[in-house]
Order: sequence, then structure tokens, then C-alpha cells
Amino acid sequence: MSMTLHIEDLPDLARGAAFLGSGGGGNPYIGRLMVERAMRETGRPLELLDLEELPDDAFVITTAMMGAPTCIVEKLPEGMEAAHSLRRLEEHLGRKATATMPIEAGGVNSMIPLVVGMRLGLPVVDGDGMGRAFPELYHETFHIYGVSGTPMVITNDHGDQTLLDTHDNYMMEWLSRGIAIRMGGVAYIAEYPMDGATAKRVSVSGTIGMGLRIGRAIREAREQHLDPFDHLIRSMEGTSYSPARVIFTGKLIEVFRRTKDGFALGTVKIQELGGPRVMTIDFQNENLIAMVDDEVLAVVPNLINILDAETAEPITTEELRYGQRVKVMVVSVPPIMRTPEAIAVWGPRTFGYDVDFEPLT
Amino acid sequence: MSMTLHIEDLPDLARGAAFLGSGGGGNPYIGRLMVERAMRETGRPLELLDLEELPDDAFVITTAMMGAPTCIVEKLPEGMEAAHSLRRLEEHLGRKATATMPIEAGGVNSMIPLVVGMRLGLPVVDGDGMGRAFPELYHETFHIYGVSGTPMVITNDHGDQTLLDTHDNYMMEWLSRGIAIRMGGVAYIAEYPMDGATAKRVSVSGTIGMGLRIGRAIREAREQHLDPFDHLIRSMEGTSYSPARVIFTGKLIEVFRRTKDGFALGTVKIQELGGPRVMTIDFQNENLIAMVDDEVLAVVPNLINILDAETAEPITTEELRYGQRVKVMVVSVPPIMRTPEAIAVWGPRTFGYDVDFEPLT
Repeated sequence: MSMTLHIEDLPDLARGAAFLGSGGGGNPYIGRLMVERAMRETGRPLELLDLEELPDDAFVITTAMMGAPTCIVEKLPEGMEAAHSLRRLEEHLGRKATATMPIEAGGVNSMIPLVVGMRLGLPVVDGDGMGRAFPELYHETFHIYGVSGTPMVITNDHGDQTLLDTHDNYMMEWLSRGIAIRMGGVAYIAEYPMDGATAKRVSVSGTIGMGLRIGRAIREAREQHLDPFDHLIRSMEGTSYSPARVIFTGKLIEVFRRTKDGFALGTVKIQELGGPRVMTIDFQNENLIAMVDDEVLAVVPNLINILDAETAEPITTEELRYGQRVKVMVVSVPPIMRTPEAIAVWGPRTFGYDVDFEPLT
Repeated sequence: MSMTLHIEDLPDLARGAAFLGSGGGGNPYIGRLMVERAMRETGRPLELLDLEELPDDAFVITTAMMGAPTCIVEKLPEGMEAAHSLRRLEEHLGRKATATMPIEAGGVNSMIPLVVGMRLGLPVVDGDGMGRAFPELYHETFHIYGVSGTPMVITNDHGDQTLLDTHDNYMMEWLSRGIAIRMGGVAYIAEYPMDGATAKRVSVSGTIGMGLRIGRAIREAREQHLDPFDHLIRSMEGTSYSPARVIFTGKLIEVFRRTKDGFALGTVKIQELGGPRVMTIDFQNENLIAMVDDEVLAVVPNLINILDAETAEPITTEELRYGQRVKVMVVSVPPIMRTPEAIAVWGPRTFGYDVDFEPLT
């Protein structure tokens, strides 16, 4: 069932996207403003296509921002950068895209394809290649299940463009990251071109709708004076993003963050409320692992979210501040993200942690 | 007058190219082996086209290696990398090249276009865009006199390829340097596509022939037991590379060299033979400035060459060793390389030296 996205849906979607971003993906606020402007200027809502209804012979080009979330807030995009990348890739391939799709469900990258869809009059597929946010371009179900990320196009705010063809998706990540860094830390890409049959096989389905549902639940709880955590967890029950649970409540007592090699890297420490325990969460753009002493309480690819303790508003890694009162929530992810092939690409060991992934039960 | 280059010319050309490289451009020996192999395998000599005889409607795509000379000696090219870049650029532009041309006259980059010419059956224009070697891709008479370096293609030894379009040639250098670094420190490029009329206007003419002449003079002096420095200087008289003179004789007492940001950077100190003076030469791939105390004895764009004191064989910056006995020679360069526009791009101030360029008289 296709869905139409209106301007009034955007605040909920942005909030839900920040949640699915698992701390990363960049602040969706800026992306939301870009979509709002595009909707106002075109006077149109946006058509979302169900992944399952995508024709086999459709042609999908995914669009996104790449770079450190810390750079986006300093360097606002003009709005057409990712659209230019898509058009350039179409020209190179000699084939017009019939839809665009997010590469990740979280943060600003849930919004960039909507901007592209609005600006180019293209529908957007309700799905993505991460089911959340992840730091690197091979952290994609597209990659895990055999799609080449290249040819790929990168565009910056000065109209500088590069088109890449690489022998694998790791080299694509390595080269394009270097280019994004030299383009100023943030750039706009079109990649993983694929037909509809492939997209149906390799994508995480329904993640834009899921973002909307999550964002709406947090808002409704506030409006109806419900416990936002209970309401949020109940709203996810029965979806592929469950179970979910709160694993820690406390106060931020330390944030260490730096932008290095094009990523926002860091660690945050949370002092338990009314208790002696301290939780440590490491992040590389996204939250990767939550530990108390030697006990691992949550780990990728499950979502690890730091939420405002009163409102359940998600706090992205670049917005973490000393003194914030927070709850930490872990959320299970869809089966396509937890296969052995998937864990080999984005399980805890791939980020250097000597622990196995255990599904949340 | 066109010229045909035979396999037996290559040692002289390589030696002369090392000289024109002014310490940089990479060791031409490896490039020479690549040309030799191509000549043996094809059984053909190579046709050199005089710049002046190039038809106005010719289409020239320049080819080269880019990266730190220190990396080439560790990572031998397969031989077709630059040809792949040229072919990819042709495909992008929808136009076949009628010739290729060096971007620099020095070192390995005097040889790469010959490999491309042999492998693709294309003539090579006897000229280039530097009249020597320089470290960066906007250090080009092509750039100085208004040609866009992009679209440009970069290929590495794994077949990874990027095509760049940038808003200016400085951004081209900045992005492509980052790509070359991530490709392993060395990559192979096709750039500055231009028609014959443009090439005639913006190129340094006859520099392959000049390399041959210089290399031959050094060899002849050795074979005929002449003073190689006198013979070399006499052989350049009346050409656009004159005057030339020996400015220092001594022993290498210190070499400081590192590979940083994709360049070979360093300083060499030479103790005067039978005297108290010490000459200091700074280099960034190429020798940039030669000083004794505060006195500047030679500076870019003039050639600064460190030559073996016995044989006048040029020593490239990556081959400098403690204890070598050397003479330092400065050589004037063609007028097209010394205009105010040219000095603004590659004069001493552009490398951070607070001195003016003075023509050698």
C-alpha cells in the first residue's frame, strides 16, 4: 500500500529518523527543513512507494549525504546536491531512474531522498539499505546481498563532481570518504543503482513508515500525557523493530568526541540515577556498544538510543551534552539485518569489539 | 619536423628527462622499461608530433602518473593504467583523441605518454605543460593560459577509476591528490583535454627533443672523455634552456625526506668541496630553491639540478644519499614559463619563499 507524505508529517518523521539513526545519521532537522521548503515551493506532497509494490523493471538510484554529522550543522546544503548526483549517474548509465530510495533510515539521510524526490518529481521507495544508520557505505544490505555500490557520483556545494567505479564496495567507501573529506567533510551522493527486482530482494522494507510511527508515538505521548517510553515501546510491538526496552537511566557525566578521518568518533559516560553504575557508550557517528563495567548491555546492529528522560526525544551523538538526563533504549532490528552475512559486515567484531551479537529476546 | 623515437633513444631520453625533472618527476628508469617493453611487443617505433605541426582540429588528451615519486619505485605500474584513463575520458567526452602529450617534461611523466602512445597507437606531441617537472596539477602552462584540467580520469593498478569535474583546477588538484593518496600513493591520469589550436597556444614546445638532446650530451661526454658539464652546457646553448651554469660543487652531508600529503618533501645539505660553505636545497618532489646562508643562488621555475660530480648524471630527490659528490647546476627555462602569469602560479612565492624570481642572465 503506497502512502503520501505531507508537510505536517515531517516533524514526526524527523523525530523517528533520529531514533532509527541510533545516535547517528546526522541531525534530521536540517534535512526536514529542506523537504519542507521543497514541498512549499512545489505545492505537492510526496509519493512513497511500498518496496513490495515496486515493479521488477523499475530503476532505483539511492541518494544520500555522506560525511561527518558534525560538519552538516556547520555547512548547510543548498538542496539540489544529491539531485545533481542522481542526474549525473543517470547520464552516465544512459537510463533514467524511476524512483530514489534512502541508503539509511536514520537521521538526515532519511530526508535527503525526499528532497531529491520532491525536486525531481520522483517517487521515493519506503525502505533503505541499513534499517538504521551506520557509518560506512558498505554497511548496506545492498552490499551484503551482492549489489555493487558503483558507479557512484559525489557532488559538493560548489558543484564539484566525481564519478567512481571501483573493484569492490570497500574501495568505494575508502575513495569516496577521502573525496568527501576533501570536499569539506560533507558531500552528496547517488549510488547502488539497481532494478526493482533487486531492490525488493536486498532492501529493508518500510523504514520510512517506521520512522513516522516512532516519531508519532513520541509526540502523542507528550500530547496525551502518557509515559513516552511505554507508549513508544508499545507502538513498536508487532513490527520488525521489537522487542525494545529501556536498559539504563542516568545523567551524562562525560562526552568525548572528535572528528577524525571523516567520522564523528567518541565515547559518552552516563551515571546511573540513584545508583553507583556508570554506562559507557562508544560511537562512530552511530552508537555502537553500551557497557556497564565489563557487561555488554547492547551492541550493533541493534539500535542503541540515548533519549531525553522526560520526553523520549532522541539525542544524536553530536548533540550529547554534560548534564543531560537520559534513558538508554535498545531495540531489536529486522531479520534481514541479523543474518550471518549481515553480522559479518556490521556485527560488533567488525567495529573491533570482541563480543558476539546476541538477538534481543 | 616530426621525429621518430626508437628503442635505442630511450636511455638518453630517460637521462635527459631526469635532468628536466629538476630532481622530481619520479625516476624515469621505470617509465623507460615500460616504453621499451611496449616497443618490443609492438615492434614499432613511436611517432613524435611537432607541436607547431599539430592540426588545429586535433584532439589532445594529456596522460601522466600522479603521486609521490617515492611510491612509484615501490609499486610498479602494469603499463595500461594511463591508457585506461585516456580511453575512459574519450568515452565520457564522446570524442577520440588524435594524440596524447606529457603534462610534464621531467622524470617518469616524460615516459608515461610514450607508453600510452605505443599501447594505443597514438602519436605523442613533442611538448608538455610544465617544461620541467612540478609537484601539482595546476602547475601547468595549460592552466596558466586558461585550459580546464577537467573532466579528468584517475585509474589505479586495481582498475579503480574516478572521473572528476571541478569548478577550477585547484579543486581538481586537491581532490585528485586525495584520491591518488587513497589509491596507494600513485595513480594514472588523463586530463586537460584540448584541441590542437589550444595545445599550440598553451604548451611548452619541443621538450621531448630537449630531453633527448640533454641525455645524449651527457652520454657523449662520457664516451668521448669530455668534461660532461662543459659539454652539457654547450649542448643547450642556443636553445630555450639557456643559459646554464654550475653554481656549487660539494658532498652531500644531510638528507631529510618524508612522504607527506602525497608528496616527497625534504631538504638536502651540500658541503662545499675545499671550502667552508654549505648549500641547502629544499624540495617538494622537485628542487625548489638553492641557498647558501641567506643568499639565493637558484629558484623555481629555473631548473635546479643535483648532478653526479664525475658523470653529470642527474640525481632525483628520492635517490639523494649521504656522501654523494655532486655539482649543482641551474638552467634558465623557456619564456612561456617565465611570464608574470606563469610566475604567479609557480614562482618562488607560491612555494612560500619570500624572494622574487630573477631571470638567469
